[in-house]
Amino acid sequence: MSLVSRDPVLLTPGPLTTSLQTKSAMLRDWGSWDAAFNAVTAKIRQQLLDIVHGHGSHVCVPMQGSGTFSVEAAMNTLVPRDGHVLVLINGAYGKRMAKLVSMMGRKVSTFETPEHVPTTPADVDRLLSADPGITHVGLIHCETSTGILNPLEEISQVVKKHGKSLVIDAMSSFGALEIDARKVEFDAVIAASGKCIEGPPGMGFVIARKSVLEQCEGNSLSLSLDLYDQWTYMEKTTQWRFTPPTHIVLAFHEALNQSIAEGGQKARLSRYTKNYEALMAGMRELGLKQFLDPRIQAPIIVTIHAPESAHYSFKDFYNRVRDKGFILYPGKLTQAETFRVGCIGAIGVAEIRQAVNAMRDALVEMGIYEAVAA
Amino acid sequence: MSLVSRDPVLLTPGPLTTSLQTKSAMLRDWGSWDAAFNAVTAKIRQQLLDIVHGHGSHVCVPMQGSGTFSVEAAMNTLVPRDGHVLVLINGAYGKRMAKLVSMMGRKVSTFETPEHVPTTPADVDRLLSADPGITHVGLIHCETSTGILNPLEEISQVVKKHGKSLVIDAMSSFGALEIDARKVEFDAVIAASGKCIEGPPGMGFVIARKSVLEQCEGNSLSLSLDLYDQWTYMEKTTQWRFTPPTHIVLAFHEALNQSIAEGGQKARLSRYTKNYEALMAGMRELGLKQFLDPRIQAPIIVTIHAPESAHYSFKDFYNRVRDKGFILYPGKLTQAETFRVGCIGAIGVAEIRQAVNAMRDALVEMGIYEAVAA
Repeated sequence: MSLVSRDPVLLTPGPLTTSLQTKSAMLRDWGSWDAAFNAVTAKIRQQLLDIVHGHGSHVCVPMQGSGTFSVEAAMNTLVPRDGHVLVLINGAYGKRMAKLVSMMGRKVSTFETPEHVPTTPADVDRLLSADPGITHVGLIHCETSTGILNPLEEISQVVKKHGKSLVIDAMSSFGALEIDARKVEFDAVIAASGKCIEGPPGMGFVIARKSVLEQCEGNSLSLSLDLYDQWTYMEKTTQWRFTPPTHIVLAFHEALNQSIAEGGQKARLSRYTKNYEALMAGMRELGLKQFLDPRIQAPIIVTIHAPESAHYSFKDFYNRVRDKGFILYPGKLTQAETFRVGCIGAIGVAEIRQAVNAMRDALVEMGIYEAVAA
Repeated sequence: MSLVSRDPVLLTPGPLTTSLQTKSAMLRDWGSWDAAFNAVTAKIRQQLLDIVHGHGSHVCVPMQGSGTFSVEAAMNTLVPRDGHVLVLINGAYGKRMAKLVSMMGRKVSTFETPEHVPTTPADVDRLLSADPGITHVGLIHCETSTGILNPLEEISQVVKKHGKSLVIDAMSSFGALEIDARKVEFDAVIAASGKCIEGPPGMGFVIARKSVLEQCEGNSLSLSLDLYDQWTYMEKTTQWRFTPPTHIVLAFHEALNQSIAEGGQKARLSRYTKNYEALMAGMRELGLKQFLDPRIQAPIIVTIHAPESAHYSFKDFYNRVRDKGFILYPGKLTQAETFRVGCIGAIGVAEIRQAVNAMRDALVEMGIYEAVAA
């Protein structure tokens, strides 16, 4: 590493690079009981509802912890003790959702496609017809394991047709890909502070259908993750039930404001798409191929096949690229040697191009680049 | 509020006032997969073990979320499905512990004393003799509802004599009051980042007896709060299982370093004791009395009887004191009108004296001070 203490650019899908303005919001200590802080919480909840056009139909409930804590809170609270969840899986986050539902003792069925194959509406139609006992469907919008995009709107229509409840893990898509409550029928959308809104990690949130959440008292086996209790307490007092991560809340609010100033979800998608295209142009120059069919690739995180070379090891590649100022992400596939590059965060095509050049330099140092470019 | 944007001093028991150095650590984005970040996590775990002299016997497992999340993680993981927990209650946090154990379906018994009465070792001896089926005892070291200190060391000896497992909620005492694993037999001590170590809120930790935690696989009903899984994954990979609150982790590490530089637990206790004494001297000047007998009062947070005046309302008092630069904390008692003042955080007697003067000015403005000083 250089002696200069400039931070590396994070090309990871959360934590990601946040703006200095966002981080600077954490330079203040706020009382969690104070009206000024509670006004920030209220503002965030409104801003998040705005993003999905959920006013009237839905409410936003923030939750301490990582995104998984919010997924577990949603499932623990929205699924009755005798509920039955069908989880649609094509990666690690689908598996995790199924595992947490199973651990809390709710009935769970899974439908798994290979990691490069999206779930189709026809799959869901068939599964729901075959087992009318299913009450809830759990879907990962963009599966970070690969970056694959599942067809949210079409699946939501099938779930609606069957009169079931749709719970969407939108962790890595929220704020960048469109999720519109007027077009997509959902009972819960779950995401977190440290993803496409570009805040620091430390809290998540659930946007839940109000009429459904109102019926969920007493479902949760967990006090900390009881979304109903968190919601009703917040409505009553304006405060969080338990100590909120005040600095994270302030920074997340700052990040939300910047997201709105940039032009909201559409502008963010546009920037990330440009980042993705710049990355792909660079990967082509380096002779590296993406794992997914581009038609099902979200411009959020991209899985890239590692160079086919005996000189390659991810650890060596990672360390060299890090020392040049960029943090890559390891692959999460078992059947293929890959690495991942995030397109999200407070970065643009300049940072992506710098990263491509750093990867090129690393591969040359490792004696690989000439081989793959040949 | 003044136009000056200087932050108020937080006289609250977490979030509290942190040093600028601690907050400044959050001005950096770190990758959660990166070795540099994982080294910080490892360092924190060692530093926390140092505080209780737990090396060899215990391990430290950090957990995302507020302190309650860590209490729930400890109970969910350490108490077997057929376990039976006796919770010793003299305030809201004891009640909360009993509630979360009950919600997760474990058997729970409670023993409640009034809020100004500590649990005694004789109580615990009698209770454990009367019900040999009890497997675990849950104790709140310093109950933040009032600031009361329960006799940890004596109770731990009784619990040990009966061969039961002691779980200590040390949320508001850890790092300031002595908890020494060589003197106190415990299976878990639980605390959080935003208390006497003076970090920002957003993560907790459990210091668990290694030989006990090793036997706890499969106990937890919660994936997010599975302490065994969090521990074994961290041991294997050096990483957190799920996205860590990277900025909070960095700031907490910075706060730990400052705590050590100050002289550790003893020095912190000394500073807080001076803060407490300055506060009490001020309260005496104002004719205000503390709720607890000073012999059972921890120098962490103090419950003060409100002035007996028709002109008094906590909201008005709070707002006036806040506008002068100090955030007080509401009382949590049902039977008496009180307010609370924290002695903890990156503050000294100068700030406490300023706060006393602000309270005096507020009471004068409210037409109360002359009455109470008469």
